[in-house]
Amino acid sequence: MSTASTSPSLLTDRYELTMLTSFVTDGTVDHPAVFEAFARRLPEGRRYGVLGGLGRLLPLIEAFCFEPDEVDWLLAEGVVNEPTAAYLRDFRFRGDIDAYPEGELYFPGSPVLTVRGTLGECVMLETLILSVLNHDSAIASAAARMVTAAGGRSGRPLVEMGSRRTHEEAAVAVARAAYVAGFASTSNLAAGRRHGVPTVGTAAHAFTLAHRTEVEAFRSQVAAQGAGTTLLVDTYDIAQGIRNAVEVAGPGLGAVRIDSGDLADESAAARALLDELGATHTRITVTSDLDEYVIAALADAPIDGYGVGTRVATGSGHPTAQMVYKLVAVGDEPGGALRPVAKKSHDKISVGGRKTAYRTHDEAGLIVSEAFTTDTTDTTDNTPLDGTPLQVSVVRGGRVVHTPTLDEIRDHCAAALATLPPTALAITGGSAHLKVQAAPQPEGAPR
Amino acid sequence: MSTASTSPSLLTDRYELTMLTSFVTDGTVDHPAVFEAFARRLPEGRRYGVLGGLGRLLPLIEAFCFEPDEVDWLLAEGVVNEPTAAYLRDFRFRGDIDAYPEGELYFPGSPVLTVRGTLGECVMLETLILSVLNHDSAIASAAARMVTAAGGRSGRPLVEMGSRRTHEEAAVAVARAAYVAGFASTSNLAAGRRHGVPTVGTAAHAFTLAHRTEVEAFRSQVAAQGAGTTLLVDTYDIAQGIRNAVEVAGPGLGAVRIDSGDLADESAAARALLDELGATHTRITVTSDLDEYVIAALADAPIDGYGVGTRVATGSGHPTAQMVYKLVAVGDEPGGALRPVAKKSHDKISVGGRKTAYRTHDEAGLIVSEAFTTDTTDTTDNTPLDGTPLQVSVVRGGRVVHTPTLDEIRDHCAAALATLPPTALAITGGSAHLKVQAAPQPEGAPR
Repeated sequence: MSTASTSPSLLTDRYELTMLTSFVTDGTVDHPAVFEAFARRLPEGRRYGVLGGLGRLLPLIEAFCFEPDEVDWLLAEGVVNEPTAAYLRDFRFRGDIDAYPEGELYFPGSPVLTVRGTLGECVMLETLILSVLNHDSAIASAAARMVTAAGGRSGRPLVEMGSRRTHEEAAVAVARAAYVAGFASTSNLAAGRRHGVPTVGTAAHAFTLAHRTEVEAFRSQVAAQGAGTTLLVDTYDIAQGIRNAVEVAGPGLGAVRIDSGDLADESAAARALLDELGATHTRITVTSDLDEYVIAALADAPIDGYGVGTRVATGSGHPTAQMVYKLVAVGDEPGGALRPVAKKSHDKISVGGRKTAYRTHDEAGLIVSEAFTTDTTDTTDNTPLDGTPLQVSVVRGGRVVHTPTLDEIRDHCAAALATLPPTALAITGGSAHLKVQAAPQPEGAPR
Repeated sequence: MSTASTSPSLLTDRYELTMLTSFVTDGTVDHPAVFEAFARRLPEGRRYGVLGGLGRLLPLIEAFCFEPDEVDWLLAEGVVNEPTAAYLRDFRFRGDIDAYPEGELYFPGSPVLTVRGTLGECVMLETLILSVLNHDSAIASAAARMVTAAGGRSGRPLVEMGSRRTHEEAAVAVARAAYVAGFASTSNLAAGRRHGVPTVGTAAHAFTLAHRTEVEAFRSQVAAQGAGTTLLVDTYDIAQGIRNAVEVAGPGLGAVRIDSGDLADESAAARALLDELGATHTRITVTSDLDEYVIAALADAPIDGYGVGTRVATGSGHPTAQMVYKLVAVGDEPGGALRPVAKKSHDKISVGGRKTAYRTHDEAGLIVSEAFTTDTTDTTDNTPLDGTPLQVSVVRGGRVVHTPTLDEIRDHCAAALATLPPTALAITGGSAHLKVQAAPQPEGAPR
């Protein structure tokens, strides 16, 4: 029994396959197309987004295929007809993808991911692309705010411990995205195994309750884990718990954890008591409904680290990143020239044409602007704008060509966050620091 | 490349294994224990919760084991010591679980799931139990409100289409939980394949844009899907889109979908135009940022069905159900008698002892009260209270003994919702309809 199938292909909205059936039937399935993923807006109050999930997404795209039993099921359910089933049996993505690097900032209109391929190929990937990017970007964006509130990458360390508050597989992605955004570690073992995120964890209240006395529980934990462990001291009475902890582990006790009460008051009292007991190097970690606002409010408390659960796993009020995936150019025959297309629906207008994005910075390295040029062909580059190009090649001919390590992604994110001025890093509610728009078209460019 | 490992065992917080190591080291790992999952409170404004996820959880528990390579990894990472590794190699859950049936209502304090086994067994399951129940219950609880707003199971049908707004695997669980709560269908194909949820889907704006004209797109779709299909009419201009749709499909067109604008105004205009064109049986479905509040506001609009995405996939503001898993009784030797235990942390007090819950109803079948008795042994039943017992046996000796079909679960949920009075079903903000508390102990009962 697995929590998931072995192929990602059915993690897809039925309408992608209904559209595919029409494309196969009307003969347009191999026409060239360009789709883009972008956010029309940021979640209410947010000043920037952090792109998450790219490193999870690309291998899934490379592996995206339909097993024979899946095609049989789609046929039996009437989702596809026989010609479409034949198409699916041979399906894999053979096109090209450009994207902002994972950990990069994005703003409303940033073309974070561009897929070029056939109509059939591009349509099939829509749901998977949006699921992964919307989820992981929501987590990375929230986590980055918490890291900022805790003093940044060189500030107080944050542990992601929200696994129990979200879907069991989403939990693994949460741990990865939070680490990308600057969290130090996670409680989630699968994130350690699959992604190499450092894992930590000591004990719950149940551990203390399972023993006849708190002292007995602490003795057991120190015997198994050593004095450098973290003892949870608030099962009964915090002050007595701290006395018991230092009595059992000695003044070399690694840390105490407090998971209830007024954390500012309790941490101050705990620091004073630990110091009085000679445990001057014993750290204080706190948990219990933390988010960026609580962390910021605890900045002056004698706290050495935070454990964040629910609020990071649920995006701190914004559990999805609202990205969409839109057709921006299409050709009218296989290998044919592309023409830009754009939707004109009320309140959901899109900009046609493939976009190439650039960002400019001031002398201090802070972001000044982001803009894109649009082009209608997928063979020539647009006239470059001033500034740094944001997109990199990530898939070529269906193969992943962009494979940074998770720590490289994490470093990229830290460097990207360092390009935001303090006003943009503020955790108070605000509006997007930038709005990304089309640069004026150079003369002679196709319209 | 899979989106998940083949075993759920590492979808676990590291501290469960750290505690296990201490239990193995201090010799308490086989002591008997009872843990309970419950919610201390409901999300802000909610009047009831709907238990989701049990049918996904139980097979995962039955399959919970550690593969040799997983144990090797845990050893190499220093998560466990060698005696604990030996314990894990042989691990499976061999205990008993009682639970509220999936789809049942719960309130603050309802003991929705009770696990009896050894300390080691019970601790290992904590993270997985909470991940599944918290996620799926959050979705089912939100979805039930939307179903109520749409007129209940016999009202206007709801399609779950939020896959692109949440983690790709969470999306499958979302579709399942929404169906349990009364949604009619989902866009998610994996939910159809794995769980038998009915799937639907027709076309996106990209489909229209991929053709030279809207008429050409509609012709293609009708050729592939028949006139009974749903045509998306708002890519350019809704009125013209409707005229094009009826021109292509004829007055027997199945449905039109509107995904933008003021849905009350647009649906009224669409109904008038469809009727004028003779398409009097063509249905109108609407999508675009719907939730229970918007659905309720559209009650008088001539709408035949709703598609709900973001808001159902993210729990309509409450993406997690806040359940916790607490040790309530433990023995001091293998096979020994149990003693109740309870945490005394500030603001997180728990009630010790294994709980058996009962609910009473009035003559009309509406809920009147819910209460539980507590007992400290796991071999005898508590003195029963008046009313209907809520827990059923779901696992015995590690084997799943409760296997309702998904439609039986869905029917159970509908029947449970029918026991709520209108005041409890109201979607406006309120407090929990009931608070579940301990019944007075009968004389002579253990304290």
